[in-house]
Amino acid sequence: MRVIEQTGEHSFAFNRYLEPIARVQPGEEIVLHTEDCFKGLVKSETDLPSEVLSGAGYLNPQTGPLYIEGAEPGDTLAVQILAIEPDRDWAVSCIQKPLGGLTPNKFTRMLNEPLGEKTWIYRQDENGNFTHDRYLSFPWEPFLGTIATASALEVISALTPYEQGGNMDSPDVCPGNIVYLPVEVEGAYFFTGDVHAKQGQGELCGVALEIAAKVTLKFELIKHKKIRWPRIESPTELMVVGSAKPMEDAARIAYAELIDWMVEYGWDRLDAYQALTQDGKLYCANMVDTVYSMVAKVSKKLAQRDA
Amino acid sequence: MRVIEQTGEHSFAFNRYLEPIARVQPGEEIVLHTEDCFKGLVKSETDLPSEVLSGAGYLNPQTGPLYIEGAEPGDTLAVQILAIEPDRDWAVSCIQKPLGGLTPNKFTRMLNEPLGEKTWIYRQDENGNFTHDRYLSFPWEPFLGTIATASALEVISALTPYEQGGNMDSPDVCPGNIVYLPVEVEGAYFFTGDVHAKQGQGELCGVALEIAAKVTLKFELIKHKKIRWPRIESPTELMVVGSAKPMEDAARIAYAELIDWMVEYGWDRLDAYQALTQDGKLYCANMVDTVYSMVAKVSKKLAQRDA
Amino acid sequence: MRVIEQTGEHSFAFNRYLEPIARVQPGEEIVLHTEDCFKGLVKSETDLPSEVLSGAGYLNPQTGPLYIEGAEPGDTLAVQILAIEPDRDWAVSCIQKPLGGLTPNKFTRMLNEPLGEKTWIYRQDENGNFTHDRYLSFPWEPFLGTIATASALEVISALTPYEQGGNMDSPDVCPGNIVYLPVEVEGAYFFTGDVHAKQGQGELCGVALEIAAKVTLKFELIKHKKIRWPRIESPTELMVVGSAKPMEDAARIAYAELIDWMVEYGWDRLDAYQALTQDGKLYCANMVDTVYSMVAKVSKKLAQRDA
Amino acid sequence: MRVIEQTGEHSFAFNRYLEPIARVQPGEEIVLHTEDCFKGLVKSETDLPSEVLSGAGYLNPQTGPLYIEGAEPGDTLAVQILAIEPDRDWAVSCIQKPLGGLTPNKFTRMLNEPLGEKTWIYRQDENGNFTHDRYLSFPWEPFLGTIATASALEVISALTPYEQGGNMDSPDVCPGNIVYLPVEVEGAYFFTGDVHAKQGQGELCGVALEIAAKVTLKFELIKHKKIRWPRIESPTELMVVGSAKPMEDAARIAYAELIDWMVEYGWDRLDAYQALTQDGKLYCANMVDTVYSMVAKVSKKLAQRDA
Repeated sequence: MRVIEQTGEHSFAFNRYLEPIARVQPGEEIVLHTEDCFKGLVKSETDLPSEVLSGAGYLNPQTGPLYIEGAEPGDTLAVQILAIEPDRDWAVSCIQKPLGGLTPNKFTRMLNEPLGEKTWIYRQDENGNFTHDRYLSFPWEPFLGTIATASALEVISALTPYEQGGNMDSPDVCPGNIVYLPVEVEGAYFFTGDVHAKQGQGELCGVALEIAAKVTLKFELIKHKKIRWPRIESPTELMVVGSAKPMEDAARIAYAELIDWMVEYGWDRLDAYQALTQDGKLYCANMVDTVYSMVAKVSKKLAQRDA
Repeated sequence: MRVIEQTGEHSFAFNRYLEPIARVQPGEEIVLHTEDCFKGLVKSETDLPSEVLSGAGYLNPQTGPLYIEGAEPGDTLAVQILAIEPDRDWAVSCIQKPLGGLTPNKFTRMLNEPLGEKTWIYRQDENGNFTHDRYLSFPWEPFLGTIATASALEVISALTPYEQGGNMDSPDVCPGNIVYLPVEVEGAYFFTGDVHAKQGQGELCGVALEIAAKVTLKFELIKHKKIRWPRIESPTELMVVGSAKPMEDAARIAYAELIDWMVEYGWDRLDAYQALTQDGKLYCANMVDTVYSMVAKVSKKLAQRDA
Repeated sequence: MRVIEQTGEHSFAFNRYLEPIARVQPGEEIVLHTEDCFKGLVKSETDLPSEVLSGAGYLNPQTGPLYIEGAEPGDTLAVQILAIEPDRDWAVSCIQKPLGGLTPNKFTRMLNEPLGEKTWIYRQDENGNFTHDRYLSFPWEPFLGTIATASALEVISALTPYEQGGNMDSPDVCPGNIVYLPVEVEGAYFFTGDVHAKQGQGELCGVALEIAAKVTLKFELIKHKKIRWPRIESPTELMVVGSAKPMEDAARIAYAELIDWMVEYGWDRLDAYQALTQDGKLYCANMVDTVYSMVAKVSKKLAQRDA
Repeated sequence: MRVIEQTGEHSFAFNRYLEPIARVQPGEEIVLHTEDCFKGLVKSETDLPSEVLSGAGYLNPQTGPLYIEGAEPGDTLAVQILAIEPDRDWAVSCIQKPLGGLTPNKFTRMLNEPLGEKTWIYRQDENGNFTHDRYLSFPWEPFLGTIATASALEVISALTPYEQGGNMDSPDVCPGNIVYLPVEVEGAYFFTGDVHAKQGQGELCGVALEIAAKVTLKFELIKHKKIRWPRIESPTELMVVGSAKPMEDAARIAYAELIDWMVEYGWDRLDAYQALTQDGKLYCANMVDTVYSMVAKVSKKLAQRDA
């Protein structure tokens, strides 16, 4: 299997202006390594993020960009996630000011004192679980916090989820699933990173179980197929991730795009609206990033009319 | 089993000023019948809601109020949902202007023409499913769209979810679960109604599979225990329903209250915040009512520290 | 001039179930007295709201209800504000937990410690200004924080702004202006209170210069004229107050209703949309109440086509 | 006066990767010309935006970047707006799908049919007014819709307002005022454009009176002074522009930063909070862009403690 090394610096933005670290053929299986969102700087429970990260610059280093051969604007890039393996035997989470779903932050400004900081280190135990203590112990359920192609017009912070993917923090971006991303520039300029060993819905305090990891991917191109927001396919479900604020706008995007996807399978738009009303699922992937991500999903059986 | 009949008119608000239809002892099992949200007026696919409901007044008739003996402000009412059975062999859904998650409405005002109306009638088939056609066919997964105690200060429309429950439209208000509601007035003044044969997360078009039903409940009082928002307990999970706009405020309420619940089991607040970050779930119950409802949940195993 | 005394308790909700304190004829000028929002309990700078209000029950006492003779559902009540005079020589403001635009609160829940409390007493000086110190000194620019008719279906907290008025906290509800309110119940059930000696746009910390006052009003009925949200007319401008969350929904309501008002003067809807785009004004009245209020305004000259 | 020509293409993003069109000394007065947001393509009332703009690529062409000599990260750039003069005798507005405050759009997705398109051409008459008909006629009150320095990390669409300025659409960015922008990259990389002959608060339909213009500016550098969001100074007022969604987050940013500004003049933070509560102003600049802009303002007399 081809292992692609990150040459040069990691990027902290999804940026089409960077030199690709590799050119990849559709159909090829490749291996990447990803850093954790803190660049590995938060290593022990006495490390306060505000201290060890002070002066460290941007967060959330990305591996990439990969140039996908043959990718052109208007195509869709299908990314099959074959495996995610830990690159180390510990993961870290923390309360980091000013970040989190239950604290003021840069965009929801308030006058209160920030929450105190706290760091939790989880070590992988003999059962493979990541364990801090007898209560805070979780199985290895890894996924890619970020996965993106580059925007044609913009360079976007690696902290942001957007139309071509980005920092969605959706636990469904996991091994066994396929993520579909719109291609806006020639070569797609694929980035990934921010692996989470485990994360609940919403990524409530802003920091999941952050870990460096080895990621195995396979790309396919769907030529001349234009989608507007990231789609995810699992063995049994179709999903769309919408990212916006307020949260209801993220939900509207996710469900509206899922209706569009169902229409591709022959559904009348209003009947698809009806079907999702009775059988859709809608969960929050993140309520902490620069914009929020909501995931709408439907069973393939219903969406694909396998009656 | 004691069957309580709705004497007099159904209420279209959660209203402490009404005469109770019955007085119920804690521990007693009772049976109620509920109307559908349209008062049974939308009966066929040629019934356009704007026509058959024109001049019909308010929607979402409630069964109640029940006076719960011994209930006092500051108590919590535990409602065990023992059974929900259909009172008829069909359910109805429709696109009704101006309602729905993907259309302007009374509170999200726009200048566009409303969506066209459409009515779907689902009939219960031999397998117990509610079926409109070969694709739109769903199992019987009933729940109570509304469940509430009365506010002390306000009278609240039956279309609204709020701190004492109301129109939360959460599929987890279902048989086998217990709903905990704050008591604000003597006797609690319990209301329920709006049974849904089936509904997806978000109740996207605004109308689930609406049906009249027979509901079996059992009440318990938890004296001198004050909660602030509705809680739900399933055999395996603890949940809180937050209702607010924008949707992120509903999410914040749900998770903040779930932390408070975990603190009752001995959790440190920041550790509970951490635990929910890695293992909480957060779905949308409704994105169509006067305010939105989000449900945060955690496994009992984690919350109750059954390590 | 007829002075109407508050008989019995002040109400802390806009409540159609109460006994009217007086019956008033359209055209009649009347005088009312209003309490401050704290019921006069916060009287000195050493009074911490959390202490002096502890156990004091609800806030924002309302004067009323007045029964307006001849008012029927579907009418509009025009309230001319003739005068507001101070009933005492001091006003009070404070930081009161958990209230304010820059602090978490009941509906925007966070884990941070609350802001500290602080009370400011302003005394009326020889120039008529309300003065705390050489910097915090403001002219007497009084208005009615609350003004409402009762809802037909609901009883609504005096802390809430809504379709029939309520706690809008708009500085344009001031002497010289006319406020138009929808009538939903026979007799209208008019309430007012919460006079502010002065308030900026947004009522940022949640508490304006609160004062007891003497209010002179005159009512007129516009029969068979249905409006949906409160309107305000000044000598030179037309305004609509929209109240909702998120704040953009309040803005949408205010502008959409202002378009409707312009259509009554002969405007085409899209041309009115265009006119407001180029010459409308849109300010925030409150960003602290249970829902936010936005005021859209346009010059009478433009709206009434006095070309 | 030095006239700087746009060499090469206009940019449709605030982009630090571009070659500066000129290097400018602090203190120098310069003249720029700006295109209208439609690149001049919408020229008559029979031009439907969807037709004449189809295939035209991005909108909102920017003049720049200017390299400001001596500007370094951590400085503040003060831009004095000396004059804005029309470059032609007509301006254009239109309803353009899918844009506008009272219509679904890319981020507030709905299923309804879009609003119809309509174009209004305004011609400058002998009084200097821009006139469409006897009612739609407005004075020349020009301002810069966009004004920005480049972000260090991101490239940002010219349709977006953000921390370094951008598409704020605030009528206070007008001749006579000074706009203060954070500097994030060496040389600042200044952009401007999108002149509006007139615009109301909110830019309701999404398109003001768009016009090509001649703009006279003077730059000053405030070394080693770091601000976080754009500030505006008029002869009598201090203002901050916050841009975010939902709209209340934009309001929070604007007022929180205005408090910070007042603290620079010696105010205690809570006293500044109090002062703005009683005498601040808060209007909506835009409710149509990718995020909304709110402007908080206070009189210099109060803020600067000229008691």
